[in-house]
Amino acid sequence: MRFAKGHGTGNDFLILPDPDDRLAFAPELVRQLCDRRTGLGADGVLRAVRSAAACPELAAAPEWFMDYRNADGSIAEMCGNGIRVFARYLLDHDLAAGPVIAVATRAGIKQVQVAEDGEFTVDMGAVKILGAGSAVVGGQACEGLAISVGNPHLACLVDAPVASFDLSSQPVLDQRWFPEGANVEVVRLRGDGDLEMRVYERGSGVTLSCGTGAVAAAVAAAVQAGGAAGATAGGGAARPMRNDRAPGNGRAGATGTWTVHVPGGRLVVTLGETTSLLTGPAVIVAEGELTGA
Amino acid sequence: MRFAKGHGTGNDFLILPDPDDRLAFAPELVRQLCDRRTGLGADGVLRAVRSAAACPELAAAPEWFMDYRNADGSIAEMCGNGIRVFARYLLDHDLAAGPVIAVATRAGIKQVQVAEDGEFTVDMGAVKILGAGSAVVGGQACEGLAISVGNPHLACLVDAPVASFDLSSQPVLDQRWFPEGANVEVVRLRGDGDLEMRVYERGSGVTLSCGTGAVAAAVAAAVQAGGAAGATAGGGAARPMRNDRAPGNGRAGATGTWTVHVPGGRLVVTLGETTSLLTGPAVIVAEGELTGA
Repeated sequence: MRFAKGHGTGNDFLILPDPDDRLAFAPELVRQLCDRRTGLGADGVLRAVRSAAACPELAAAPEWFMDYRNADGSIAEMCGNGIRVFARYLLDHDLAAGPVIAVATRAGIKQVQVAEDGEFTVDMGAVKILGAGSAVVGGQACEGLAISVGNPHLACLVDAPVASFDLSSQPVLDQRWFPEGANVEVVRLRGDGDLEMRVYERGSGVTLSCGTGAVAAAVAAAVQAGGAAGATAGGGAARPMRNDRAPGNGRAGATGTWTVHVPGGRLVVTLGETTSLLTGPAVIVAEGELTGA
Repeated sequence: MRFAKGHGTGNDFLILPDPDDRLAFAPELVRQLCDRRTGLGADGVLRAVRSAAACPELAAAPEWFMDYRNADGSIAEMCGNGIRVFARYLLDHDLAAGPVIAVATRAGIKQVQVAEDGEFTVDMGAVKILGAGSAVVGGQACEGLAISVGNPHLACLVDAPVASFDLSSQPVLDQRWFPEGANVEVVRLRGDGDLEMRVYERGSGVTLSCGTGAVAAAVAAAVQAGGAAGATAGGGAARPMRNDRAPGNGRAGATGTWTVHVPGGRLVVTLGETTSLLTGPAVIVAEGELTGA
């Protein structure tokens, strides 16, 4: 079995090319591959399957489907760092041509644009604000905003440096929004449009970065600042804003760009009127063949 | 650059074939390769260099020299798990023939025997007991035995389950035996010839296993039980034995076999009159090409 290993801001992935959907892709295999001592080690696996092979109904979709799995073998809808690495892999192997690559994901079709500086920008689509939520993070109660970026997040704006939070164990989430769990971000505003963030990822634990989490962090900061463009509020849900401009129509007016510093690097989130863009690096470290599988 | 990744009882390594010693093998490269997020990730690197290329004075040595580096880029003399993985790699690539493979290391020439069940037995040579030592392990003061197995160890026999010790940070060693640091083992006797062990490795941190550490653990247990065959005591050094048979000539009389359970699996140590044998598995997980280097 061929593989590549890559990362985006320290969020690392194994890419498994499986164009014809022939791999018996059981959770046990994912766990074994992602084990950092007895396997290759990664936060998750990106299986590259031709959409038509993965699902005949997807025949009209983009050529490639990104089958993303967390390190524990569980399925995730979308991965904002992973999809950049996935696009980099497709480009490097002449499996897709830039400058814009469409990728089918469980959260819909995503467009990935190759920037001139080697970074990639993903159109993450519309973000949905669910409402106020809370979590206990390393013993500290945190208020946050429940947000769907294709996958579920609780982004908690905090006053203390994010390094001071203990993310070594799974935060305890309130059950209102997240019957199946969520990623939890602690986010601090450092300056104008400048955030720092740490994340505990459902199914992977603490990671150095999370792309969808960076988008959620920017949305939470934008809501607090007075508007979240590109974000649709859930119907009638309470929203934990200090926000005079809370929109009645489910849309906020502000657009803007947020730099999100994560332990593994820097991401840039641009919130537009109807969508959100995530920009960051994507690196392939190695390629090869699995010998044990 | 080609690589393989493998492990022995969860102690994992990158193998870099560099037969002609052409690689600029700086500590930065090792650290980058061993980074578990932005690199391939491993406890250490085993560079495979032809002895004659590594050092003309080694021309009469075994064909292959194992240049072992810890994850932080520092040099280590020897690695009992690594050398089994190294032998597995040489065998798999027809670079050496079994059933006994000689490998040059910084701790001298080591013989590795391929067992019928796919395990490997390494002749670790004579072990040297330095004397009594101590360390503070996660806040707990531990008495131990300073032992050289090619590389330096402090093996501490403890009464509590080894899982109860906090090895997340570097133990504080007394400076008597270890001006350049040492691996620290906590070791508990579970039954006749049956030990459990955890280890903090100098230069790599807490690992799932350590081969030379398992030998040190068996020696410490044998000394406590009344004799340590294959071990030479340091001249006149105090020895922390409850041992009526402390030998005046620097040799202990007992031989025996110890099973050493580590978090990553099981190793077997056989202490003989003049040498020590370490037996355990060796697995190659993947092979490939580094794309970033």
